[in-house]
Amino acid sequence: MADQWLPSLITKTPEEGFQLAITLSRRGVKFTQPDVEVLKKLRPDYSNNADSLTAASHVVAINFQTVAAANNYWR
Amino acid sequence: MADQWLPSLITKTPEEGFQLAITLSRRGVKFTQPDVEVLKKLRPDYSNNADSLTAASHVVAINFQTVAAANNYWR
Amino acid sequence: MADQWLPSLITKTPEEGFQLAITLSRRGVKFTQPDVEVLKKLRPDYSNNADSLTAASHVVAINFQTVAAANNYWR
Amino acid sequence: MADQWLPSLITKTPEEGFQLAITLSRRGVKFTQPDVEVLKKLRPDYSNNADSLTAASHVVAINFQTVAAANNYWR
Amino acid sequence: MADQWLPSLITKTPEEGFQLAITLSRRGVKFTQPDVEVLKKLRPDYSNNADSLTAASHVVAINFQTVAAANNYWR
Amino acid sequence: MADQWLPSLITKTPEEGFQLAITLSRRGVKFTQPDVEVLKKLRPDYSNNADSLTAASHVVAINFQTVAAANNYWR
Repeated sequence: MADQWLPSLITKTPEEGFQLAITLSRRGVKFTQPDVEVLKKLRPDYSNNADSLTAASHVVAINFQTVAAANNYWR
Repeated sequence: MADQWLPSLITKTPEEGFQLAITLSRRGVKFTQPDVEVLKKLRPDYSNNADSLTAASHVVAINFQTVAAANNYWR
Repeated sequence: MADQWLPSLITKTPEEGFQLAITLSRRGVKFTQPDVEVLKKLRPDYSNNADSLTAASHVVAINFQTVAAANNYWR
Repeated sequence: MADQWLPSLITKTPEEGFQLAITLSRRGVKFTQPDVEVLKKLRPDYSNNADSLTAASHVVAINFQTVAAANNYWR
Repeated sequence: MADQWLPSLITKTPEEGFQLAITLSRRGVKFTQPDVEVLKKLRPDYSNNADSLTAASHVVAINFQTVAAANNYWR
Repeated sequence: MADQWLPSLITKTPEEGFQLAITLSRRGVKFTQPDVEVLKKLRPDYSNNADSLTAASHVVAINFQTVAAANNYWR
């Protein structure tokens, strides 16, 4: 209850769904490294590296597949 | 509203769907690095590296799966 | 019986499903390296490396796809 | 119209479907690096590197999933 | 017949399904490197490297998707 | 006709399906590097590298997903 961050995969719009995919991707990182200070320190590394950015976009794409399917693609 | 970039996953043709997959891939990058100037500076790095280009194509392929399914493969 | 860690893919909530995806990801590691001491020693390496964290999040995203589909996306 | 390269995901045979998956993979590269001369210059790099070839095959595999599903697996 | 290692994708439980996903992942390695002695020699390398372990877990996750779908998620 | 290597995705058994997934993975490599002599020369590199073997197994896993779905998982 303290941390109910994922009540549902259903979103009103595709754009909110994409935002949820980003949230899921970040949560996937946080479960390995829960220390927010460490994460902040790492940010300059990957946010200025093209391959790291592509890898981040890759994870979002996977999670967006899940969210889009959950929402029946907002058809 | 200020940034309604993804009103729908439905496109008229497969080609527009592929274009949307590219847009989704770029958005996935932008959420980590929103600074357009930084992104421009990184471009020569990955656009001249074969493995980076393959990785970019990989993300587009994943997003295209989502868009194609949303459109029932334009059958 | 000694090690019944995966009785079902069905969870009550999306959040428990995400937690199960994390468990599946860790099990995937453990089958290759069952020695918990080695795993502990490796932790500082990857938990302080942005690309390793992204890769870990990637595996969780794949497993979450499976769990979410199993639960019919908790619709 | 000038560049109608993807009129449909439907192909007559699995083999043509695989060929289409290759086309999709190459298009995914071209959207990032449209300069054909640069792409030609990069070719020796990745076509003589085992890991690069595996990565290329990976992208084709993803795109082939999409094309195969679109064609109901040519059952 | 000499090597009937995959009679079916159907398993009684999710846990056996996960085990089958591991078997599939190992078979995928063996087809490229069938020499068991070489594989044994490589083991210390990847079983003590965090990124290699994550990559192994990734392949298991993909194969588990297939096995889970085959079993209708053991619903 | 000269090269009809993929007449169908349907196989009699899961094991033949796995073999087909391997064939698809190799074809994905060959489209980028058709020179068999080069491929033979590269073999020692990746067949003695744990991460390369995992990457190869990864591509087989993706292709096996496609083949398994095509065969309705041989249920």
